[in-house]
Amino acid sequence: MSLLVVGSIAFDSVKTPYGEVTDALGGSAVYFAYAASYFTPVRVVGVVGEDFPEPHLDALRERDIDTTGVRRAEGKTFRWSGSYEGAMNEAETLEVQLNVLGEFDGKLPESYVDSEYVFLANGPPATQHSVIDQVASPKLVVADTMNHWITYTRDELTRLLARVDGAVMNDAEIRMYTGDDNLPRAGRKLLEEGPRFVVIKKGEHGALLVTRDDFFSVPAFPTTDLTDPTGAGDSFAGGMMGTLAAGGGTGTDDLKRALTYGAVVASINVEGFSLDRFKATVRDDVEARYERFRSMMTF
Amino acid sequence: MSLLVVGSIAFDSVKTPYGEVTDALGGSAVYFAYAASYFTPVRVVGVVGEDFPEPHLDALRERDIDTTGVRRAEGKTFRWSGSYEGAMNEAETLEVQLNVLGEFDGKLPESYVDSEYVFLANGPPATQHSVIDQVASPKLVVADTMNHWITYTRDELTRLLARVDGAVMNDAEIRMYTGDDNLPRAGRKLLEEGPRFVVIKKGEHGALLVTRDDFFSVPAFPTTDLTDPTGAGDSFAGGMMGTLAAGGGTGTDDLKRALTYGAVVASINVEGFSLDRFKATVRDDVEARYERFRSMMTF
Repeated sequence: MSLLVVGSIAFDSVKTPYGEVTDALGGSAVYFAYAASYFTPVRVVGVVGEDFPEPHLDALRERDIDTTGVRRAEGKTFRWSGSYEGAMNEAETLEVQLNVLGEFDGKLPESYVDSEYVFLANGPPATQHSVIDQVASPKLVVADTMNHWITYTRDELTRLLARVDGAVMNDAEIRMYTGDDNLPRAGRKLLEEGPRFVVIKKGEHGALLVTRDDFFSVPAFPTTDLTDPTGAGDSFAGGMMGTLAAGGGTGTDDLKRALTYGAVVASINVEGFSLDRFKATVRDDVEARYERFRSMMTF
Repeated sequence: MSLLVVGSIAFDSVKTPYGEVTDALGGSAVYFAYAASYFTPVRVVGVVGEDFPEPHLDALRERDIDTTGVRRAEGKTFRWSGSYEGAMNEAETLEVQLNVLGEFDGKLPESYVDSEYVFLANGPPATQHSVIDQVASPKLVVADTMNHWITYTRDELTRLLARVDGAVMNDAEIRMYTGDDNLPRAGRKLLEEGPRFVVIKKGEHGALLVTRDDFFSVPAFPTTDLTDPTGAGDSFAGGMMGTLAAGGGTGTDDLKRALTYGAVVASINVEGFSLDRFKATVRDDVEARYERFRSMMTF
């Protein structure tokens, strides 16, 4: 099944207790696409500047990631700089240079219009709406967001929730949006806005799936080599959506399995900076960790 | 199998966003004993003051909880007062009146000396050592602690860890003790001090079991009726130790099952103030929630 992601392509400068990188490849669409590519081909919509090296796109294409929708615009690529301390559950953003991302409109190439699985990475709800408008007959649309959009474009976000099958938020965001500190209850409240399921990301504590009738908690895979959490959420979403697109089903058991693969893929990504770990990881490695994870959880 | 708990018996005054109680029955030994009593008889060692109503002890005895080891001392019962806000992951302590707990020495009645399963609730490591000295040939000794003892009696605590089979700490405490923010790795470091397993309590995020060869994450049961987290950790430990004592095994699969029952029992306790929910809950209710939890986690 065809899987589309619309999101950012970035140069990240990141500092953690375990080291630092400058202008390393990142961005929600990139982490998502790498993660999903273990399971299914991926189509990317994003924008890069004149300074973006072509080999980064070649590397994506080598993993069966379609970059037809990556537009090169005049100006510089989006840049984000941040640092993590302690338990590294939250980044301190040091600098954001929007650059070409400021004019990103989420325009799909004609060849993407038939996409069946759609992931709207964090971005302006207006752009997320526009993507839904362009896709002909999607089977599953899932949207991420962040505190900025909850604060400044709440109405557009609320209208977006009525148009998606699934919503992804982190714990702080869903508490902010619903005004409810109890996560299971906040998830249920978000369902009232329209989505069939909600995934609450909790960093080192994993994620909680909330549907009308069910809950499912997936812990984070307990890695002792956490190095850089950047991209963990998008890698998680990529593993989840890739598994769903590859499997074809979207029932509760499919979602539980998909969240578990998401947690596995995210745990691999955070063991290195940028895409370093993904570049050294093949599908068999993912399967091995998935089996280890399942065995850990079984008794 | 005989299960012994040594800990506090308290009057708690608690305020949460859902209400408040004044001088309600609480304390680590009380929460633990109620929780464990769903699975096995329990022996309690603790101290109360002259102001402690006998009916509270009658209620314990009605649940097959042996109170021979509860001494009544001159003075007032230990009092704790605290409040919770927001996600209620941490209490703000408003007042502590040590009262008779200040002279508590953990002296066991003769009839407890043959106890096989021993839980040393949070308390001075010197008292915890003294209990181990008194028990003839325990099969499984597990100790809890808190930041105060890590800061002020670290050496005694380290010597205690060498004498126990299992250690229970919350996430902040094990980070403080080991100086490592990565929980799986911090757990492994704590194992180097002696225990065979470590249980890291994470409040609303459940708990992580760490052994030399394995990890197991149990999420919190996703209750939408969280009312008062007081006693959650001790209820969790009670459910865990009660399950172990009832089952007889102490292998990794036994521990996984025990942590899962611990999470279930804790999730019931936090749906009311003081012991309100436990008093209205029978073993069949616990089993029903356990089955629901297992089914949630299965796919």
